[in-house]
Amino acid sequence: MAEGVLTGMRLVEVSAFVAAPLGGMTLAQMGADVIRIDTIKGGLDYRRWPVTNDNVSLFWCGLNKSKRSVALNLDTVEGREIAINLIASPGEDSGMLLTNFPPRGWLDYSNLKERRDDLIQLTLMGDRHGASAVDYTINARVGVTGITGPSDINEPVNHVLPAWDLITGQMVAVGLLAAERHRRRTGQGQHVKLSLEDVALSVMGHLGFLAESQLGQERERHGNELFGAFGRDFCCQDGKRLMVVGLTLKQWQSIVKAMDLGEAMTLLGQQLKLNLSLEGDRFQARREIAKEVQRWVGAHTLEQAAAILDKHGACWGRYQSIHELVNSDPSCSPANPMFSHIEQSGVGRLLAPAIALDFSEVQRLPASGAPKLGEHTEQVLLELLGISHTEFGRLHDHGVVMSSSSN
Amino acid sequence: MAEGVLTGMRLVEVSAFVAAPLGGMTLAQMGADVIRIDTIKGGLDYRRWPVTNDNVSLFWCGLNKSKRSVALNLDTVEGREIAINLIASPGEDSGMLLTNFPPRGWLDYSNLKERRDDLIQLTLMGDRHGASAVDYTINARVGVTGITGPSDINEPVNHVLPAWDLITGQMVAVGLLAAERHRRRTGQGQHVKLSLEDVALSVMGHLGFLAESQLGQERERHGNELFGAFGRDFCCQDGKRLMVVGLTLKQWQSIVKAMDLGEAMTLLGQQLKLNLSLEGDRFQARREIAKEVQRWVGAHTLEQAAAILDKHGACWGRYQSIHELVNSDPSCSPANPMFSHIEQSGVGRLLAPAIALDFSEVQRLPASGAPKLGEHTEQVLLELLGISHTEFGRLHDHGVVMSSSSN
Repeated sequence: MAEGVLTGMRLVEVSAFVAAPLGGMTLAQMGADVIRIDTIKGGLDYRRWPVTNDNVSLFWCGLNKSKRSVALNLDTVEGREIAINLIASPGEDSGMLLTNFPPRGWLDYSNLKERRDDLIQLTLMGDRHGASAVDYTINARVGVTGITGPSDINEPVNHVLPAWDLITGQMVAVGLLAAERHRRRTGQGQHVKLSLEDVALSVMGHLGFLAESQLGQERERHGNELFGAFGRDFCCQDGKRLMVVGLTLKQWQSIVKAMDLGEAMTLLGQQLKLNLSLEGDRFQARREIAKEVQRWVGAHTLEQAAAILDKHGACWGRYQSIHELVNSDPSCSPANPMFSHIEQSGVGRLLAPAIALDFSEVQRLPASGAPKLGEHTEQVLLELLGISHTEFGRLHDHGVVMSSSSN
Repeated sequence: MAEGVLTGMRLVEVSAFVAAPLGGMTLAQMGADVIRIDTIKGGLDYRRWPVTNDNVSLFWCGLNKSKRSVALNLDTVEGREIAINLIASPGEDSGMLLTNFPPRGWLDYSNLKERRDDLIQLTLMGDRHGASAVDYTINARVGVTGITGPSDINEPVNHVLPAWDLITGQMVAVGLLAAERHRRRTGQGQHVKLSLEDVALSVMGHLGFLAESQLGQERERHGNELFGAFGRDFCCQDGKRLMVVGLTLKQWQSIVKAMDLGEAMTLLGQQLKLNLSLEGDRFQARREIAKEVQRWVGAHTLEQAAAILDKHGACWGRYQSIHELVNSDPSCSPANPMFSHIEQSGVGRLLAPAIALDFSEVQRLPASGAPKLGEHTEQVLLELLGISHTEFGRLHDHGVVMSSSSN
């Protein structure tokens, strides 16, 4: 079996939804052995939409690729004891737990630490007190919905991409890797806590939104316009759309050259008394610039514009639907070494991505599907806990464990 | 000085914009010594908006907290040689480079590797071939803009939060930590490549968007409605808004109890022949459910609704502006241990976030400001390269280095 950059590392995951499963999958796609523990009927997100006609969750499959699945009856003492033993199982590369369930009961850190003193547990929470919060409730609170969307509407605009979950998912991986590094150097495990709320609040600070507001500046709704530089969408002659960005001076000059706007921009800068080689000045002149750019874009089909913009190395992107992305974008196909077709049990043949990180000295492990629920219960219990086939049979007959054949 | 979980680790950063600086700052806020190398006049994003009245970039300050700054004239052979020596400087915890500049010239990995064989270099790119792409051009391409925003509009809706940049920034930290772990175990450095495009494409796969489209399902624009479960915004009696989410059964039951909708929902389920204890069925009944929820929300002020929803542990969030967030949300204040007030040079007193990760066995390092450009040039050259004060004076007089006093 091919080795990834994290091959050897082992993590137990007790999780649901986006951030925690994504954090675990990030490590799994780099070669870590990530063992999901679920209840026998599947966790909270086992049927999360989108689903197939057979009610198999494409969401769950997408976020649990390359993991192993152990299904236990966690309502029984015996089932919970098996889970604890898996979490505390020995090995210097093991002893890591990722969960977004409340760290109480069998997931209580102090109790687990008694079973393995150097345990690393990362607990993901809604807010820092452990209260319920999801991406969409946090997004409302941090104010982003009020500055998203067309500038002529007064209602909040939610995002569709659960951005906070996705950022948090990667921070989960960061936190586990940092704690594992600390353990390797000191022998010390620890409980790492992370909340979705704190991730969102910190990012609002990092991007300058909080500072801007503290200084009394209020960001307005700018529609599809980039803030602070030049960039927005334009409509081509054939009705197709593209996004054009002139953030750096080089990007701006590429646009000006590609569209032959040198003279017009010199004149415009003089008229407005602005220096269009500065990004802030381009933002102030964005409406006037946009008129000229629209005139050029509107006189070209998307393919014509694309050829000229690419020739000049301009920074632009075509608006396309997910259907177009999947069916006609070479980067979203096996022409991109990140992608391959996998056989996803319960679904069939799917194009699936491996990890986006490309390490020169270790192979990028190709994508592999999500497990069937309980697919690895017997394998993992035999391998990690030394449970015999006979004993496994007894546990199975008593409804403590669930095993699914792997076809 | 307090120790963070990564204290000892050293990284040289040559970067601009969001993702790469955020990746470096993530490590810096956990205690790593992150040394930014910039040109004497500042990099491409040194004046990025939002800016103060004095044209100090709040964006740049936000993304470069806790780093050291070295300013060099990179147009000179001598300046580039100093930069290379910093990148290749000895120490088992050093020898790491993060850049989103083209890995050519003095940033060419093979050349740098000749100076330090176990160098880890992470190069962030627009697309995997190194072509120009930014968050907003990628977002157009992956199709998210077509399913964001009010359902009655036909134009793309860009996001304001540069979600792809932010996810990528955390993946940068993941990639560096994974490569450093590999080096510690094998002695081997490597060149890690990551593109913004691949991050976005992989996430579209992970969330099931690509699979959904491959199976012939096309996601529609659902406005502020959550896809696949029950959740959307509602308007209170006082005109304030809140987001209510019933993703899990428990969350759904909390809403039903808080709003006393048990009977109405039983009736509705019977009428529609749907089982409202299933999230998918709640999505199908979302319009009818919303009518009942709106009736309840509309009969309460936000504060009244908040009290009742909190009493029942419901999952909800208030829509607020960034101004309200900064001025009246206790979580966005020093009442949250992640936040403290810092003195940001060139700006003044600002509320600033530390890292969101909270490690039980090491202190969370309090936020500290971004450096002044060149603030640490002399200190770093003396410390890492053993350059004398006299030699530094010569380099300074020849315009090879720039040093700013730290007040």
